[in-house]
Amino acid sequence: MSIKTNGFEGQPAAKLRASLRIAPVLILLLCSFGASAAKPQDGRASSHYQQTVDRLREAGLAGERGLEILKRITSVGPRLTGSPEAAAAVDLSLKLMKELGFANVHAEPVEVGHWVRGDAGKAEIIASGTRAAVPLAVCALGGSVGTPEAGLAAPVVEVQGLDELARLGPMLKGKIVFFNRPMDRRLADPFSAYAGAADQRVNGASAAARYGAVGVLVRSLTFREDGNPHTGLMQYDPRMPRIPAAAVSTRDAGTLSAILKEEKSVSVSLRLNCRSMGKVLSANVVGELTGSEFPGEIILLAGHLDSWDLAVGAHDDGAGCAAALEALRLIKDLDLRPRRTIRAVLFMDEEFGGTGGRAYVHAPQRTGERHLVAAESDRGGFVPVGLAIGRRGSRVLEKISSYADLFMPLGVSFIVPGGGGVDVGPLIEQGAEPAAVMTNAQAYFDVHHSALDVVSSVHPRELELQAIVLAALAAILAQEGI
Amino acid sequence: MSIKTNGFEGQPAAKLRASLRIAPVLILLLCSFGASAAKPQDGRASSHYQQTVDRLREAGLAGERGLEILKRITSVGPRLTGSPEAAAAVDLSLKLMKELGFANVHAEPVEVGHWVRGDAGKAEIIASGTRAAVPLAVCALGGSVGTPEAGLAAPVVEVQGLDELARLGPMLKGKIVFFNRPMDRRLADPFSAYAGAADQRVNGASAAARYGAVGVLVRSLTFREDGNPHTGLMQYDPRMPRIPAAAVSTRDAGTLSAILKEEKSVSVSLRLNCRSMGKVLSANVVGELTGSEFPGEIILLAGHLDSWDLAVGAHDDGAGCAAALEALRLIKDLDLRPRRTIRAVLFMDEEFGGTGGRAYVHAPQRTGERHLVAAESDRGGFVPVGLAIGRRGSRVLEKISSYADLFMPLGVSFIVPGGGGVDVGPLIEQGAEPAAVMTNAQAYFDVHHSALDVVSSVHPRELELQAIVLAALAAILAQEGI
Repeated sequence: MSIKTNGFEGQPAAKLRASLRIAPVLILLLCSFGASAAKPQDGRASSHYQQTVDRLREAGLAGERGLEILKRITSVGPRLTGSPEAAAAVDLSLKLMKELGFANVHAEPVEVGHWVRGDAGKAEIIASGTRAAVPLAVCALGGSVGTPEAGLAAPVVEVQGLDELARLGPMLKGKIVFFNRPMDRRLADPFSAYAGAADQRVNGASAAARYGAVGVLVRSLTFREDGNPHTGLMQYDPRMPRIPAAAVSTRDAGTLSAILKEEKSVSVSLRLNCRSMGKVLSANVVGELTGSEFPGEIILLAGHLDSWDLAVGAHDDGAGCAAALEALRLIKDLDLRPRRTIRAVLFMDEEFGGTGGRAYVHAPQRTGERHLVAAESDRGGFVPVGLAIGRRGSRVLEKISSYADLFMPLGVSFIVPGGGGVDVGPLIEQGAEPAAVMTNAQAYFDVHHSALDVVSSVHPRELELQAIVLAALAAILAQEGI
Repeated sequence: MSIKTNGFEGQPAAKLRASLRIAPVLILLLCSFGASAAKPQDGRASSHYQQTVDRLREAGLAGERGLEILKRITSVGPRLTGSPEAAAAVDLSLKLMKELGFANVHAEPVEVGHWVRGDAGKAEIIASGTRAAVPLAVCALGGSVGTPEAGLAAPVVEVQGLDELARLGPMLKGKIVFFNRPMDRRLADPFSAYAGAADQRVNGASAAARYGAVGVLVRSLTFREDGNPHTGLMQYDPRMPRIPAAAVSTRDAGTLSAILKEEKSVSVSLRLNCRSMGKVLSANVVGELTGSEFPGEIILLAGHLDSWDLAVGAHDDGAGCAAALEALRLIKDLDLRPRRTIRAVLFMDEEFGGTGGRAYVHAPQRTGERHLVAAESDRGGFVPVGLAIGRRGSRVLEKISSYADLFMPLGVSFIVPGGGGVDVGPLIEQGAEPAAVMTNAQAYFDVHHSALDVVSSVHPRELELQAIVLAALAAILAQEGI
């Protein structure tokens, strides 16, 4: 575009700029399924906070502090639960929160598992009479047992899902099952596509072991066709034999599938020396801006400090941690003095199932505390597009909806019931209202759980806008309660 | 994130997937300033088109055809107005539209200017007694005259904007004026920040020449601090001497500014051998799906085929062209048989001021045609976040707002009056309603008009969603009129 094409209304852009400052163009009205609609307000409530939100936006976007915090957090490297790097991340986060001037900075112990990948996984399609061997890019899934030291080799059976296994039954005995159902590209919501394919990764091994399979390969959960395997949690059914499980890159899944179509029998060799090392003591990291009037009423902003081990976990979930810390920093640096406590918690061990979130609610420090809202940021460090908050029909949903015009200019174009996440799940079960910034996640699964989840894939302004939205939300809730 | 944290409502993601299919969660209500609000509908109108939009979404997202079209268009290289590559792009686009099976594929002549950059611009901060020379990354601004063959050298005066020039007056004589006001990072809308700084690039040279300056350097219009100069149109006031104008990278603008603070007198040498080559015959490229009932009533989808010359113009505006062509392809391949004509126009010469858009409205083919809506896509190939359509209070705005629930799942969370652009401006002056997909443009000015505007910076699904939104919009409007 040249200079002349910018605005709404076909205005010259300079006019657009003025109009954006005069008044919100939009009132967003939201209806949940059967619930009554939040009513658009006359604007007086919002105007009370307009200056606060403007100051948060200007202070945040003036720099790239969110990204700087992300760089600090990821500077220790990948932060796999139980690893020395995760321990270093705890120490670093305590130091960082103190530097930022937060109050009551402390670690709370969490007993976690410690799984290690060992050497990089190796796999290849074994040469046939007419074809050379074909290497496959694989990685062990999180929690998998290893193969025998020398590896294993077996014929491969391709399936599109767990429901095919019963039909194949006995013919799976001694085989490697290759789960190759892709994420459904046709869905506009990448999270839905992910959720629709992840059962293969999480439950595929035990489902195949039931029929005597000796290992599984799972197509990586991404829309991209490339050579990067994507790891992630798998879980064993305690009633079944534990067999090794690896992700294979989408490109190599395609290669394997094509060869399986051409040849009657195809065998793959697989070697993983991942293993579980038992329990380790780790920690959640907690810091806050203590409320001036109701210190025991808490607005919680959460991310998870652990990551997978193939990269530094910049989007997952360094970005969520950075957004929470940057939100508190903005509120503190602007001296907004919250009436209720705004707390940042960097949870340990989201990826292996949320032991940190469970430990948090049972910690002795919880005595006398009441968590009003628990916002978890774990949808990538992308631009905010909406806000999910509160249960259907809840007062907090109605309240925040009445401030929709404050959030619109930050990119938040819809406000819906919802939010939450693995780490804050236990808090929500106890009555806290969930919240989460909804992001544009079209590119999330390009990098998710893979070697591509690096800091350069996070855009400084998109991450900063997330932090600003969280800060605005927390500032309003800390002032008003729910 | 692990598998468990996805949805709105803290639902397991698999449930989210189901819920998204059941019913729209949101009704979007929009109010323009004083106008009455569009009323939320009871959904019957929308359900009529639900299947159409679902089919467009599924057919579009199943592949990456939008990106493939973008790769074709950009395969000719940068498409500077009047260049041989722009001519090749016209030929290629005609071929492409025919391959896609569009009707009435033809070129319409446009007489355009032909400016050439010549050798890469060179500049350096001339060595002082205590400091070595410092090279500056610069590029000529589009339309600039060159320097003398040997270059020029002059002391530099830094200003923050055009309004400082009058105050400095006589001291600018014989100087190079260095416009160094950055885009205002604190604005959430990048287009507003761009519009607020672009006067330096467009009008800086003549404004400085008024006071006897011999050249201008303009800070590149981007939020990023890096070594890439960003070009773009500059215009001469015919009453002033024409002096050379170059953009300098933000990083080197910072360096120059820092040295200016330290040293009393700093001179810069500048050499540009860009020049204007006179007029050339070029063309707009037109193709359509002819309306079955009202062929003379036209829904126009536009992009501009020309680009700047530092890269292939993937976002600006290969993406807009690709989105328009892919929208028509989807409608055609799904055999939707529009009642009114849906036309794609790839305009020539947006970047030097829109001669293609003006030629289009005056072409003999316009006789008997009535353009109902003219949608221009020139906001980068990013994910759609909203839709701007129609004048305030217009029927088309009300109509499309009543279908908001169809657009929500495609990422379109707000519908506002507006749209338009340089190329469709003349059509809108003649009464066509404007339209444009609003995008998340936080990263747009990172690449805009620079060497970074390459295909790998465009996300296939984000571009495809833009095409699907355009297709849905065009399909509904072609069925119903406005």
